Amino acid sequence: MLDRFFSLAKNRAKAFGAEYVKLWEALECNTSGGKRFRPRMVMAAYEGLGGTDIHAAAYVGAAFELLHTALIVHDDVIDRDFSRRGIPNVSGSYRDIATTAGIPIPTAEHRGMSVAIIAGDLALFNSYRLIDRSGVTGEVREHLLEILDYALFASAAGELIDVDLSLTAGLPGVDEVLTMERLKTAVYTFESPLQAGAVLAGAPDVVVAALASYGREVGIAYQIVDDLLGVFGLETETGKTTLGDLREGKRTVLIAHATQTPEWSVIYPYIGKSDLSERDATLVRTALEVSGSRSFTERLARSHVDRALASLAHPEIPEPLRAELSAVAFDVLSRVR
Amino acid sequence: MLDRFFSLAKNRAKAFGAEYVKLWEALECNTSGGKRFRPRMVMAAYEGLGGTDIHAAAYVGAAFELLHTALIVHDDVIDRDFSRRGIPNVSGSYRDIATTAGIPIPTAEHRGMSVAIIAGDLALFNSYRLIDRSGVTGEVREHLLEILDYALFASAAGELIDVDLSLTAGLPGVDEVLTMERLKTAVYTFESPLQAGAVLAGAPDVVVAALASYGREVGIAYQIVDDLLGVFGLETETGKTTLGDLREGKRTVLIAHATQTPEWSVIYPYIGKSDLSERDATLVRTALEVSGSRSFTERLARSHVDRALASLAHPEIPEPLRAELSAVAFDVLSRVR
Repeated sequence: MLDRFFSLAKNRAKAFGAEYVKLWEALECNTSGGKRFRPRMVMAAYEGLGGTDIHAAAYVGAAFELLHTALIVHDDVIDRDFSRRGIPNVSGSYRDIATTAGIPIPTAEHRGMSVAIIAGDLALFNSYRLIDRSGVTGEVREHLLEILDYALFASAAGELIDVDLSLTAGLPGVDEVLTMERLKTAVYTFESPLQAGAVLAGAPDVVVAALASYGREVGIAYQIVDDLLGVFGLETETGKTTLGDLREGKRTVLIAHATQTPEWSVIYPYIGKSDLSERDATLVRTALEVSGSRSFTERLARSHVDRALASLAHPEIPEPLRAELSAVAFDVLSRVR
Repeated sequence: MLDRFFSLAKNRAKAFGAEYVKLWEALECNTSGGKRFRPRMVMAAYEGLGGTDIHAAAYVGAAFELLHTALIVHDDVIDRDFSRRGIPNVSGSYRDIATTAGIPIPTAEHRGMSVAIIAGDLALFNSYRLIDRSGVTGEVREHLLEILDYALFASAAGELIDVDLSLTAGLPGVDEVLTMERLKTAVYTFESPLQAGAVLAGAPDVVVAALASYGREVGIAYQIVDDLLGVFGLETETGKTTLGDLREGKRTVLIAHATQTPEWSVIYPYIGKSDLSERDATLVRTALEVSGSRSFTERLARSHVDRALASLAHPEIPEPLRAELSAVAFDVLSRVR
């Protein structure tokens, strides 16, 4: 679906010049790859609840994937990130073109960010269009649009909390970080796509609610695990440096817990230290273990996975779907093992 | 319609905290005021072509107005502008809150820009929703969504050209500036709203096309006149300083023409001079008159207004609508008299 969408868009862009086609190509590059969680969640719920119009479900999945692209492209502008998983993102590739042309770095960076704002706008607007193009009509269509709408509404609220937290001198508590992570990412990645798949399959409200609840819990668990991997992960597996979160002083559950422990006095000088070394990081990791922050965070992730599994117990959820989603929940946890 | 839309959104935002409600308030502030060109154009075409469902037309008009809000909020981020017509915009008001809290200016500015990216995303996504909420269904709805989609598609293309032009050392030609201005602003301000109003009224394709053509021409004329006012306008009337365009070295039709005249050697040292004085500006204005750039630009605006009026000659356009839109075209020109 996304292939076809981008091919149409690029074709249409030709009338506006080669640069505009390139922008659409950059957007396409930033949409492909990744784990495609959102289409997978839509499809799992849809097929698991007896849906057979794979075409429509693929469009709905693509809509959430394009929403994801829009949100990460803009999030990278907000975070002043020029790469994602080691590859230049939209801001980064356009910055690089400008620096290669001899444009000074601050101007080149702003150019990259400007193009990324435009690209994200196109992705955002078209996520909506893809639901429209699914061919679904009437109440189901209206319901799907409400779900997509809520996903963006929640994500914007989460992004706002994130922006505000990064400005506050004091560090937030565990609950505040959890709320931010849930709204900013978990809702649109798990909760909303599962709801959408269930609604598209014509599932009863109780089933839609049970899947939404599962998605909410597994989504939170996923973010908590991400916080752990950002410090304790293996770079070879995550594709991310395990110094990044510490260097940027990222507000995570792990750190939020640590602030309440005696070990914080050892840890805090390293949080946000832009030239943090591997040796510094080892010290911080040890302190996070001694403080109990690592095990607290692991337990917290497990407790959300438990709640996710409990939501699946609803008798109207067919067994194969329950099995598939249970496996997804275990996969989330296994990332930290 | 927008009042109701914002009141619902603010109510919904309460569950996400007071800061999120404030963000919606800021977005509402940045939507009200202004000339409300887009709803006026939708309504003029709709009522002038016999439409009677004022409720639906108001929603469609509000959709274009919200698209406008999204685009200017993001355009201000791209241009690093923190005010619009002398009043702090979203970036500006959030920057000011941060500086008042003692946050250093670069961080405060980035915070303002970050919040503005989020706010623009919400406005953009919801512009689409408002068409949906108009109650229009079937082919007409699909057609309206295509028109809104094209408006954003064109505007993004224009914004990209603008970003690229501002990076190029050489100055663009008149045609390039005209293309940029048409795509970036004229399409979604005049052409698309008029088309949408006509489609909503069930007008025949030839009438929709005639109004689109009128909108395109009058929209270009409006932008050309804006370029003139940016240098020769009366601040008391435009609410904008007449030094701004020169200080920022804005790519305008006026300047594009001047580059091709012998007077350019006198003018160019002042273009983009950030501390340009009123005395410097007087000298530039005189040179732009001697070079013929002012009269060329005025003639160009008139020729587009002439073409706009010619488009209205189509026999299927009712006389009262022709009269109303002719008046709009003359108003555009009268701003420079």
